Amino acid sequence: MNIDILGLIAATLTTSAYIPQTYKVIKTKSASDFSWIWLIFMIIGIFLWFVYGLMIKNIPLIVANGISIISLITIGVVKYVYRQS
Amino acid sequence: MNIDILGLIAATLTTSAYIPQTYKVIKTKSASDFSWIWLIFMIIGIFLWFVYGLMIKNIPLIVANGISIISLITIGVVKYVYRQS
Repeated sequence: MNIDILGLIAATLTTSAYIPQTYKVIKTKSASDFSWIWLIFMIIGIFLWFVYGLMIKNIPLIVANGISIISLITIGVVKYVYRQS
Repeated sequence: MNIDILGLIAATLTTSAYIPQTYKVIKTKSASDFSWIWLIFMIIGIFLWFVYGLMIKNIPLIVANGISIISLITIGVVKYVYRQS
């Protein structure tokens, strides 16, 4: 298999995975199983990939990581708003 | 900032994020907030990154994606075993 196609499929899967996940979290108003450390590390880490994409002007990196960041922030907001008091 | 260092920090964050997340899931025996689609897409997608790492003989890609796959499979096993019946 062509290496570039492998990377493209991998990136498409790991990005599109976040769309049904975010939908589930919004619908169930529940994100308590997500660890804050996971969320914060992922948001910072993926933001750095996003910046990296901007620096090398790579549209797929910008789009993929942009979608993932929006999803992760949404999960974090739901987790915070609907936390058990 | 050096672009390679940016990528290294990003990869370290997005990989190490899974360690406390997996610990939390095992400890609470709960992973119901995770979407099956997210888990399956992430496992396949990260497995492809792992294969990509093997193809280009890149140790950081192999190690980082190997840790993430083990974590994601563990989350999937907990989600399946402790599903609400």
